Amino acid sequence: MEFLTDFKPETVQPQEIEGRSFQMIDEEVGEHSYSPEQYKVVQRVIHASADFELGKSLVFHPKAIEAGIEAIRNGKKVVADVQMVQVGISKPRIEKFGCDVKVYISDKDVMEEAKRLNTTRAIISMRKAMKEADGGIYAIGNAPTALLELIRLVKEGEAKPGLIIGMPVGFVSAAESKEELAKLDIPFITNIGRKGGSTVTVAALNAISLLANKG
Amino acid sequence: MEFLTDFKPETVQPQEIEGRSFQMIDEEVGEHSYSPEQYKVVQRVIHASADFELGKSLVFHPKAIEAGIEAIRNGKKVVADVQMVQVGISKPRIEKFGCDVKVYISDKDVMEEAKRLNTTRAIISMRKAMKEADGGIYAIGNAPTALLELIRLVKEGEAKPGLIIGMPVGFVSAAESKEELAKLDIPFITNIGRKGGSTVTVAALNAISLLANKG
Repeated sequence: MEFLTDFKPETVQPQEIEGRSFQMIDEEVGEHSYSPEQYKVVQRVIHASADFELGKSLVFHPKAIEAGIEAIRNGKKVVADVQMVQVGISKPRIEKFGCDVKVYISDKDVMEEAKRLNTTRAIISMRKAMKEADGGIYAIGNAPTALLELIRLVKEGEAKPGLIIGMPVGFVSAAESKEELAKLDIPFITNIGRKGGSTVTVAALNAISLLANKG
Repeated sequence: MEFLTDFKPETVQPQEIEGRSFQMIDEEVGEHSYSPEQYKVVQRVIHASADFELGKSLVFHPKAIEAGIEAIRNGKKVVADVQMVQVGISKPRIEKFGCDVKVYISDKDVMEEAKRLNTTRAIISMRKAMKEADGGIYAIGNAPTALLELIRLVKEGEAKPGLIIGMPVGFVSAAESKEELAKLDIPFITNIGRKGGSTVTVAALNAISLLANKG
């Protein structure tokens, strides 16, 4: 195959693109009160969305970063609400600690139970997850119903996440589910408002796993 | 398992959530000059991002919708730039026409060639795609370099997409790659600015496949 000729070389190397992007974000982000480690998450969320408003809407439980790092270093499970989140997560950086990314929403037993109870597969997938992922990281980027159910399970003492990254997007229940999450006294990362989604949830998780690989 | 009790029933049914969301979008979207079919795509992009600014930044080639519908009804390939786009696409609605969603970026030969040429896997994946996906839909949500390479291949007559959905996100080359796409005289859907990403690219494709299943 022939190498393209009319291409600016500086756009071609992925590491360079990322470095230049982060520099632009730093220059444009303006004032904020995030800690240096929290800002690593904010920066990656802005990188994934090109949306400073979304990035600066992030809210952190004070222990969120250290809890996330600890969960990864201890090889705990990562539970994604949907497959888009699962495939987006950088695997080598977490698999080296023994972490595994699970998604239950398309499991046969989950689908059957959701049909039987006339509810969402997202809800039932959280009930399955809680049995397998004590101390793990829940990364919820799509389904407010999953996040609301997880919050309920936490309140009832049935689910014991190490960290919840909850950033579902949408018009119905998304903002409300994140407000509920921000009231919990366990480690969480969330954002205020309707925006969010799989790509920014992935970005937040990947930022934490990078921190877990440092120092 | 016990059914949750403190849950508003109207938040539980996915179809209802979607219907109410679309109603809210219609109420808030304001003035625009999209055709009714183009608006179906805009609406789904807003639904996936909760971002009206992003939704209303969409730009359509005049033949984009009909070309996309035709490609799907003729069972052409769908090429995704990354796996997140691939897994997000609703499969039953396109597989019934014989469509298949391909992603080449992690193929062994693509990885080796990218290393040999010291370039991105995204670029090489487009060169592989062009040999297999004549008349197909290219859905590019992540990599500006993939989109720029595809545009180059189109200009040189090597790639013959039926429709390009190009909405990569980012700070380096993303906006520029979409400006270049909007200059092509083949069917495209893109947006103006840095925003975009896998979830909105998926939303656009899914909107087209819904139209292909109607009428």
